[in-house]
Amino acid sequence: MSRMLDEIREQPAALERTLKDAARRVERFKRLVTLRRPRLIVLAARGTSDNAAQFGRYLLEMTTGIPVSLAAPSIYTLYNARVDFRDALVVALSQSGESTDTNAVLAEARRQDAMTIGITNEASSSLAKLAEYVFQVRAGKEKSVAATKTYTGQVLMLYVLAYALGAKIRLDDLARLPEQAERALSLEAEIAELSGRYRFMDHAVVVGRGLNYANAYEFALKLMETCYVVAERFSSADFLHGPIALVERNFPVFLFAPAGVTWPAMQEMLAKLRALKAETVVITDTGNRNALGTSDRVMRVPARLRELYTLIPYIIPAQLFAACLAEQKGLDPDRPRTLSKVTRTL
Amino acid sequence: MSRMLDEIREQPAALERTLKDAARRVERFKRLVTLRRPRLIVLAARGTSDNAAQFGRYLLEMTTGIPVSLAAPSIYTLYNARVDFRDALVVALSQSGESTDTNAVLAEARRQDAMTIGITNEASSSLAKLAEYVFQVRAGKEKSVAATKTYTGQVLMLYVLAYALGAKIRLDDLARLPEQAERALSLEAEIAELSGRYRFMDHAVVVGRGLNYANAYEFALKLMETCYVVAERFSSADFLHGPIALVERNFPVFLFAPAGVTWPAMQEMLAKLRALKAETVVITDTGNRNALGTSDRVMRVPARLRELYTLIPYIIPAQLFAACLAEQKGLDPDRPRTLSKVTRTL
Repeated sequence: MSRMLDEIREQPAALERTLKDAARRVERFKRLVTLRRPRLIVLAARGTSDNAAQFGRYLLEMTTGIPVSLAAPSIYTLYNARVDFRDALVVALSQSGESTDTNAVLAEARRQDAMTIGITNEASSSLAKLAEYVFQVRAGKEKSVAATKTYTGQVLMLYVLAYALGAKIRLDDLARLPEQAERALSLEAEIAELSGRYRFMDHAVVVGRGLNYANAYEFALKLMETCYVVAERFSSADFLHGPIALVERNFPVFLFAPAGVTWPAMQEMLAKLRALKAETVVITDTGNRNALGTSDRVMRVPARLRELYTLIPYIIPAQLFAACLAEQKGLDPDRPRTLSKVTRTL
Repeated sequence: MSRMLDEIREQPAALERTLKDAARRVERFKRLVTLRRPRLIVLAARGTSDNAAQFGRYLLEMTTGIPVSLAAPSIYTLYNARVDFRDALVVALSQSGESTDTNAVLAEARRQDAMTIGITNEASSSLAKLAEYVFQVRAGKEKSVAATKTYTGQVLMLYVLAYALGAKIRLDDLARLPEQAERALSLEAEIAELSGRYRFMDHAVVVGRGLNYANAYEFALKLMETCYVVAERFSSADFLHGPIALVERNFPVFLFAPAGVTWPAMQEMLAKLRALKAETVVITDTGNRNALGTSDRVMRVPARLRELYTLIPYIIPAQLFAACLAEQKGLDPDRPRTLSKVTRTL
């Protein structure tokens, strides 16, 4: 049994712990940002944390109306540029809190007296010390190199941050996420069986749209790191107008397709892929039961969810798939070749 | 002879025409933004234009200090969110000017009275009509589905925009770009020969850092669209801390490695890749002549350039490579399967 799989299973408890702690602390921060509302949000991260930031980029902008920018750390670390952080809220995300790039952005923000938040799993990390406010993910030590429980923990914290900034997000709705994560975990046996079919898969495309674009990035990263599958990630809009040229018979395409505003685009995508006789695997929920073709394989999330809250329950089948596929391929997902846990960037 | 190759060769003339026209018009705009300096720049684009925008994201932020955000069009088109564009400059990039997504962002910006710019190759397009200021790329009609001359035209216009916003960029330096493009074109025969080696390549990774991160995206997109190569694109920082797990003996990795601030990071990357016995192809200039290993293949740009100005001369060998490789593979790069030229998004 891999640690990765263990840590995937720990997510409901980790999410519950994290939310409980955050709920106690967030009101004070909420009052504070009501008085000092940022005009720009900058998110800084690398790797899996950057995929969570990609979600934050969509979530925060669409629910608060405040423009969001994903920081390009090399602008600070290599080009030594001075970016104007006036009235900005700078949010750094890092599992370990020791990512040199992410911390460089945070340090520059502090220097300019911008408001700063650190979202990290490590309370005594450099990031936690640098940031004015710490949103601590309480996932417990993450031992597998492939991050899973800290990704969903960061996603949860981004919902909490949106709530603090006045988004129409209810803490009560967030409180249901651990249970939904638990339900998604019930797919494990089914996914373990499905993964056998992909034992020899060496390339794939993962597609998402809107909020789930971030999950497409994250699933592709897991397939690359733990299964050595060359996995591209696209928004369905970008994929359709260029890279779809790649797709021939049996080309594997994984799609995040929740019910809601992104569904028509995913349906259009699926219709095109079926016509090309691609191998399609759809992550969707029970709301779309009858909308899929007979040729589509499905990882069906056992809940009907508002699209806004799909991120965590939808990434879990993907995490399970990556962990199971690594096992099918005889690989150790906890120790991908050539990788270490902390991101130090030259 | 493919149209793609024809259009690649037209670039020096197209760039010269575009710059000449822009230089005549830019001073008025420069005075105007001196009076009404934006506090945020939002770039909206899809596909190849989005790769140019990725360059703009780095260039504008590092040379003007104004924070830059790449728009997520679905936030406007699917989620109907209202993002606060106060004091923002919204720049839409589209070859055809008919990308529905990009135009939706522009329309919302107009509604809010934000300053808007359209960078397009089509003077009578919807985008040109929507935008307050048009920066017209004068590349001539682009017939190949694979965009080449409009990409470099957009890149050029982003330099011009940075200049207008007060960056330390000299129009005289930009005036040298057509000649440098011409020199890069002199590599054609050499690249045609090199491409033969990759006739059976079906996957690859393209790596860039900083400004050339955009070129990595663009090269990968060309490999996907015209050669059906599953081509991943990464910044060296992200690649090193995760997806490098993919790399085994003979895994093909293409690197943009100009002399300058990103060079140490690319050297570190190359050393790792050599140790893994990857197949490395380096796009670099004569400044780094002695710094490469004997195992590295090289597309050597015949000029020593300031890193700031490498974008155009560096993408040209990559464009040539994609066009030649498509020919090697017996594919028609002008008509990739399943694609059309204009991006209309559901």
